[in-house]
Amino acid sequence: MYREQIKVLDCTIRDGGLINNHDFDREFVRETYKAISAAGVDYMELGYKNSKELFSSKEYGLWKFCDDEEIKQVIDGIESRTKISVMVDVGRVNIEDVKPKAESPVDMIRTAAYVKDIDKAIYMANHFADKGYETTINIMAISRDQGTELEEALHQIEEESKINVLYIVDSFGALYQEPVEHLVKLSRSIVKTKEIGFHGHNHQQLAFGNTIEAIIHNANYLDGTVYGIGRAAGNCPLELLIGFLKNPKFDIRPVLDLISQEFIPLRTKIEWGYIIPYAIAGMMNEHPKAAMALRKSSKKENYREFYESLADTGLD
Amino acid sequence: MYREQIKVLDCTIRDGGLINNHDFDREFVRETYKAISAAGVDYMELGYKNSKELFSSKEYGLWKFCDDEEIKQVIDGIESRTKISVMVDVGRVNIEDVKPKAESPVDMIRTAAYVKDIDKAIYMANHFADKGYETTINIMAISRDQGTELEEALHQIEEESKINVLYIVDSFGALYQEPVEHLVKLSRSIVKTKEIGFHGHNHQQLAFGNTIEAIIHNANYLDGTVYGIGRAAGNCPLELLIGFLKNPKFDIRPVLDLISQEFIPLRTKIEWGYIIPYAIAGMMNEHPKAAMALRKSSKKENYREFYESLADTGLD
Repeated sequence: MYREQIKVLDCTIRDGGLINNHDFDREFVRETYKAISAAGVDYMELGYKNSKELFSSKEYGLWKFCDDEEIKQVIDGIESRTKISVMVDVGRVNIEDVKPKAESPVDMIRTAAYVKDIDKAIYMANHFADKGYETTINIMAISRDQGTELEEALHQIEEESKINVLYIVDSFGALYQEPVEHLVKLSRSIVKTKEIGFHGHNHQQLAFGNTIEAIIHNANYLDGTVYGIGRAAGNCPLELLIGFLKNPKFDIRPVLDLISQEFIPLRTKIEWGYIIPYAIAGMMNEHPKAAMALRKSSKKENYREFYESLADTGLD
Repeated sequence: MYREQIKVLDCTIRDGGLINNHDFDREFVRETYKAISAAGVDYMELGYKNSKELFSSKEYGLWKFCDDEEIKQVIDGIESRTKISVMVDVGRVNIEDVKPKAESPVDMIRTAAYVKDIDKAIYMANHFADKGYETTINIMAISRDQGTELEEALHQIEEESKINVLYIVDSFGALYQEPVEHLVKLSRSIVKTKEIGFHGHNHQQLAFGNTIEAIIHNANYLDGTVYGIGRAAGNCPLELLIGFLKNPKFDIRPVLDLISQEFIPLRTKIEWGYIIPYAIAGMMNEHPKAAMALRKSSKKENYREFYESLADTGLD
């Protein structure tokens, strides 16, 4: 599917960082940036810009904070047209710490928020836009928030925000194609002056299929990660997305090399992908945190008990 | 998605058999049948009815031949409403060896054929229908055969065959949602008096998404396998399909137990699932046999070379 407006954002280091406390070493990030750049991917997201007053740099790796100086080190000297993105969560960043775009290696700041926090997200995103950044708002856990509050939030975003892109985020990996179609169409119909983006989670092996569904209905900003790395079951595999798009600006081969050399060994150390408790959480439209805790326990393969515990919660 | 006409066929032992020479032991098959029955799945396919004159029973396990007596042994004494299916390939079965339905534990015979062999497939399927079986024709590798020959084959099936179900089979895991939509609609428009089925392969993580797509466009017979086991990347995971269908006749829990107890250990011995060379084969609409050979070689993680070898073939 070739459409010139389509932009791909690689969030390997950012979403992958959610399973290793953002503790990728500089060389790994540099190799990833090199491959993503050679592959012609439009954006690469390195992590979160969290306040060091809220999180300890002893507990978390570099990409929990994304200091401009660290970013400069890993991208220095690599030929690239890939823009740099960082994510911020509502309430976890001191926005005054963010320098104007002209002084920073960052091109885009994405503000992640639940529907209930949309006022704050708009305020923050507009602040970053005023500092010269490309901006997005990423509505998380949208599978839980499909009612009138969502419509109100979309109207507010259209009318009050300066963002470039509104992202639909299936945090729980709970969406099937028809809800994706509905959400993209709804967003397009209200948020007329911005682009629509989609970020899938792979709990039910639908991150790639849902991304295609979003493309069919004119979402133009698409997230992927190398070999699907990311929280819980992970994300839409970047290599599949590039293979599908068939846009001559992309070259899949550097991504294949990166998987061979870095991600196959990495996968033996940290876990993501198709794992039954994440699939169960997705089916039940639940946050994967209970499944993530299960996977660290001795009951990690006790699926029936886990299923029944979530099913019981649903009856409360 | 609740629709009364929907039937689920589990082909765990049959398609899984393609990666272990159909050599599942009787106890494993019996445990699987027990779980599939308790889960309320409509059909279970055990293997192929191949001629012992063509294949040696020393080289292949029981489920390459599916003798009625063997089937009776594994299902004996288990309470079940699950019907038994076997598959036949054009040219690999002596149809005269197949007893009348009244004398056999088998309920359904599925004839797998390429478009070019559709005459033979209709002849065989009609023979089985005359013997009292439910019958299907499964058009394999349909991603390679989407032209006028396919339309002719569909007309012939509608006019000359006695089958109950026509299956669209994405053998190469090459289809995206839009081609699935096209193929299901095309089949429905021509093969008006039969049901339409879909069998996906998971090379690009789309087997489940494509099965949903087929359901949306009124395919009513759907294949899945436990934990997605099957040739190369495998098939649509049965547990995801049951989770999606939300039909009260299904119970996912016996399938979850079976995965915990049998399939997690099995997966450490034989390989299926999301593996990059299969994804590459799917993207390129190629049979996975080259990728399967690669996975048995010392170059199993050398993705770039494999990609380039397939890309070169495409230029011949």
